[in-house]
Amino acid sequence: MRITRYTDYSLRVLMYLANKGETLSTIAEIAASYDISRNHLMKVVQELNSKGYLIATRGKNGGLRLKGKPEDINVGALVRETEQDLDLVECFGSNNQCVITPVCQLRRALAEALDAFFAKLDEYTLADLLPQEKAAEMVQLLRIVSN
Amino acid sequence: MRITRYTDYSLRVLMYLANKGETLSTIAEIAASYDISRNHLMKVVQELNSKGYLIATRGKNGGLRLKGKPEDINVGALVRETEQDLDLVECFGSNNQCVITPVCQLRRALAEALDAFFAKLDEYTLADLLPQEKAAEMVQLLRIVSN
Repeated sequence: MRITRYTDYSLRVLMYLANKGETLSTIAEIAASYDISRNHLMKVVQELNSKGYLIATRGKNGGLRLKGKPEDINVGALVRETEQDLDLVECFGSNNQCVITPVCQLRRALAEALDAFFAKLDEYTLADLLPQEKAAEMVQLLRIVSN
Repeated sequence: MRITRYTDYSLRVLMYLANKGETLSTIAEIAASYDISRNHLMKVVQELNSKGYLIATRGKNGGLRLKGKPEDINVGALVRETEQDLDLVECFGSNNQCVITPVCQLRRALAEALDAFFAKLDEYTLADLLPQEKAAEMVQLLRIVSN
């Protein structure tokens, strides 16, 4: 069981931007900071933009910044949006062939477990992922890495 | 986010055997019942055997049956055993390269969410996946499918 790389990178991009506040960031800078592929980040940023999580300004002095406040971005809601495949097992999907579906209780147990997973993430906002007292430390760490 | 096919098939095999009680079953019969590959089931059955979930008797009149009682097989424990990769994101693993790990709270949030997922599955035993009143119905369904 894994979270997709797409969700992982989406969270990292938003955490980065949350830390920068009003200062604009570039994809190149974020990619360098985390030492991850710029191409991978391109798609992630485009989708975060189309979903309304960030503002992308074009042009020479353009860049990215968070659209809302970190405390208004719910982690559970974000992960539900970025995890496109939440069909834990075959019978969650539309192409279910499992013959015991009508009498099987496994689906209910797994659905409850998935609900519990998201209920826990719902308790967190982006702001909670970066506690106030550590934010400065993180900005410094990212600066060291990107220089 | 998906449960592996290995976990899915492990659960299905044990549910099948739980329903059969003392009657021995064969891999071919289980594969036919669920319309899934016999080769896939071979490995699943071997590992369930080595983990002590079932008893495999060799020979012409041999077959498989559940080792313990369905109510003694905890679903959470089983899924923890069969899901080999529970590293939800990079920083859960031993090869973690993410630079913000020291200050990042995401790992804690995801770890709590995963705990909540398994805590819910821990509430179920194999017996709960096949409620008493539906067991007969399921045996009949599997018989119809395998004939």
